[in-house]
Amino acid sequence: MVWNEGWHEVHGGATNLADYYPGGIHGAITAGVQKLMPDAVVRTAALADPEHGLTDEVLDDVDVLLWWGHRQHADVDDAIVERVHQRVLAGMGLLVLHSGHHSKIFKRLMGTTCNLQWRNAAERELVWTVAPNHPISEGVPNPIVIPQQEMYGEQFDIPVPDELVFISSFAGGEVFRSGVTYTRGRGRIFYFSPGDQDYPVYNHPDVQRVLVNAIRWAHPAQHTVRELPAGSKREPGWFAS
Amino acid sequence: MVWNEGWHEVHGGATNLADYYPGGIHGAITAGVQKLMPDAVVRTAALADPEHGLTDEVLDDVDVLLWWGHRQHADVDDAIVERVHQRVLAGMGLLVLHSGHHSKIFKRLMGTTCNLQWRNAAERELVWTVAPNHPISEGVPNPIVIPQQEMYGEQFDIPVPDELVFISSFAGGEVFRSGVTYTRGRGRIFYFSPGDQDYPVYNHPDVQRVLVNAIRWAHPAQHTVRELPAGSKREPGWFAS
Amino acid sequence: MVWNEGWHEVHGGATNLADYYPGGIHGAITAGVQKLMPDAVVRTAALADPEHGLTDEVLDDVDVLLWWGHRQHADVDDAIVERVHQRVLAGMGLLVLHSGHHSKIFKRLMGTTCNLQWRNAAERELVWTVAPNHPISEGVPNPIVIPQQEMYGEQFDIPVPDELVFISSFAGGEVFRSGVTYTRGRGRIFYFSPGDQDYPVYNHPDVQRVLVNAIRWAHPAQHTVRELPAGSKREPGWFAS
Amino acid sequence: MVWNEGWHEVHGGATNLADYYPGGIHGAITAGVQKLMPDAVVRTAALADPEHGLTDEVLDDVDVLLWWGHRQHADVDDAIVERVHQRVLAGMGLLVLHSGHHSKIFKRLMGTTCNLQWRNAAERELVWTVAPNHPISEGVPNPIVIPQQEMYGEQFDIPVPDELVFISSFAGGEVFRSGVTYTRGRGRIFYFSPGDQDYPVYNHPDVQRVLVNAIRWAHPAQHTVRELPAGSKREPGWFAS
Repeated sequence: MVWNEGWHEVHGGATNLADYYPGGIHGAITAGVQKLMPDAVVRTAALADPEHGLTDEVLDDVDVLLWWGHRQHADVDDAIVERVHQRVLAGMGLLVLHSGHHSKIFKRLMGTTCNLQWRNAAERELVWTVAPNHPISEGVPNPIVIPQQEMYGEQFDIPVPDELVFISSFAGGEVFRSGVTYTRGRGRIFYFSPGDQDYPVYNHPDVQRVLVNAIRWAHPAQHTVRELPAGSKREPGWFAS
Repeated sequence: MVWNEGWHEVHGGATNLADYYPGGIHGAITAGVQKLMPDAVVRTAALADPEHGLTDEVLDDVDVLLWWGHRQHADVDDAIVERVHQRVLAGMGLLVLHSGHHSKIFKRLMGTTCNLQWRNAAERELVWTVAPNHPISEGVPNPIVIPQQEMYGEQFDIPVPDELVFISSFAGGEVFRSGVTYTRGRGRIFYFSPGDQDYPVYNHPDVQRVLVNAIRWAHPAQHTVRELPAGSKREPGWFAS
Repeated sequence: MVWNEGWHEVHGGATNLADYYPGGIHGAITAGVQKLMPDAVVRTAALADPEHGLTDEVLDDVDVLLWWGHRQHADVDDAIVERVHQRVLAGMGLLVLHSGHHSKIFKRLMGTTCNLQWRNAAERELVWTVAPNHPISEGVPNPIVIPQQEMYGEQFDIPVPDELVFISSFAGGEVFRSGVTYTRGRGRIFYFSPGDQDYPVYNHPDVQRVLVNAIRWAHPAQHTVRELPAGSKREPGWFAS
Repeated sequence: MVWNEGWHEVHGGATNLADYYPGGIHGAITAGVQKLMPDAVVRTAALADPEHGLTDEVLDDVDVLLWWGHRQHADVDDAIVERVHQRVLAGMGLLVLHSGHHSKIFKRLMGTTCNLQWRNAAERELVWTVAPNHPISEGVPNPIVIPQQEMYGEQFDIPVPDELVFISSFAGGEVFRSGVTYTRGRGRIFYFSPGDQDYPVYNHPDVQRVLVNAIRWAHPAQHTVRELPAGSKREPGWFAS
């Protein structure tokens, strides 16, 4: 499921977004996923939907949630954030995209400010693979060349990642940990920074490849029980065969 | 500063606590710290104090906060939790002790349930060092032998630690990651599980040594600016000399 | 491919090995793998084979190598160790089993002594999962109960693992990081300690499941180029599209 | 102790080295260390010295060894490499500098090829801190600006570091994990890439600060027993008090 707050599509503020993404940011992401995973069922949801499109009934069918937000993080209902948080801990995969670094759900999962440095100057971003064996970097060139992007730079206030997959450099000289993985509870989380509303990054075939790789990686395994990790009182020798 | 919810001291429910810890759990911890760090200024605070004893004025002087709680996690005010959270991200050290695994502050920093398995059966706990070079394991025997303790066992639902310092085994056969470190923002966090209200664990000299080592480790460095990691818009070439 | 030095099978020194493993340790491992991966092609090799059964021609077809050795680590030819090392760095998976912790190939990959504490007293080993989402722990109970095993205990002198999957406890109270993963070059490595020559551990269905899970995990991905990670002189802008 | 192979000082091949470093690379490093650690006893050694200046008697007094080499890695005697390796595992600190990435001692400790991408084009290097709380980044600006350096780029074939302290970017767009820590046995290792023979990088005050911070960090703790991590047969209950 691709979640997009949907503000820029309605209110503007993103140069040429309508040209780049006539179906919205969620539409572009969906198209890229479906091109490479034709059998996947991809749904979309938005802030303006009832319960932000994230009812319990809907989430029951979601294996991996992609989260794009920018201007309206504060408008996401705390109860829905709590619900999504519980779902991730119970095994749902989560991809947090670009400015989603400041979303409530990401900050709650990380426990940090998730602050970073930025500059929107249409700079070339190079996305370098530092984990060449990782499933998320499979089949992507090293580096991925993105002609124009917003700069996101260090210090990026996140916990030390479980795995550092990508490091980006920008024409202005900054670097950024642009692809990082975490496990929280039973859920797998991937943060991927390329993808600003001002540039057609989600139309880039290598970016699409990363997203699809990450969806496969974050997808709960067959054996995953979709419930919260439990705590129990244990009798002595409870494990005896 | 040693924070103790202070419930068992008033309401009971902890066998022999008054015998083991005539000055309360906070008193025993304080005594152990002061024995090994005679120059340290140690204060205490409790749930029942105004603002739980954690006013902004008080926290301005706290370098490392030790947190012991068990029965009243839910009674800790969310605004105070938020305040402590911000202080940790700004550089204050935090030691979370034993049943503090379920405290609001620890769960908020970890982003997980922090659930674990348990059994209160006065079992021998052996605390094994797996990071022999770490400052927190300095000068403690391997293993530390604790004659009687509550069992805490895996699965322990925490993020992968930055550093795994101690693994405990219990007479019943369970294992537990009993000493783990994290960095969140500018703050250093150490979780240490030995220390139940039913057994005189904080009188154990090796446990006292671990706490003092951890206080030194978590203490913010001289150069640490005590503020939240900031995000800023950066002009091109802002770093040029 | 299952490599076994093959000493105990010929010279004895392992109580009841002939009863437990009539086809040798390699035979028992092979049977377990084939039961769960009926389509896998499993070969065996031994120290006494020409070039220890590890010629370039043979290794060209090996995706994952399992290594069991105990008494004759010193007799493994350095040139063969070098060859296997290069193969691992080029992408071949490697599972190092039990007393293989002191093999030349493991010590060379780790860079440490790989020393550990031990006691052969037929103790119960409990293998606890601490990475419940990991493909290697998929489908195994928590804990795995092994009625009799040699004790391997901390301090285990290895680098901090990429991932800590299993921690074992023994009846005598010791703990051990019994399942750990590493990546070196393009190759994935898993060390798994259960499996002594004196006890029928490789007949244990949960142990077999772990081995098969680990073979799948260590298998090089489709896209892996089977060559050493290269260093190159790069012209400015070589990555330009 | 600062070890320098000493080739460029004698044979040339490094533009302006005599101007930048009239006392050789080792002299420049020594001067920087002594400026910031006036009480430290700094010795130097070179490939041409008997036993490369690394006799057992000398090493008995070395707490931290800095290693600079470039052209003559192959000429370092394997027995001396073995000796240094054992010393590191027994607790001696090691700083591996710049082209020392291909030294025998570093490759042996890492277990990988340590290959990387490079270009010598006098490019600006920016050294960004990603671990702002780490003692090695204490007191250095973020980024460190080095006007001219050889480019070292990813893929850098090293194990996942224990801690990633610095990431560099170069004017040409490449990135590099330029400051990484490891623990092997009882010894602490820091690899730091800035410092080519063609540019006066070791005269840069921020680079000198990093080296001094790293020497302090890698210095064995007071309690460190300077011997190899041992393996022992353990009797049941050996740890009982």
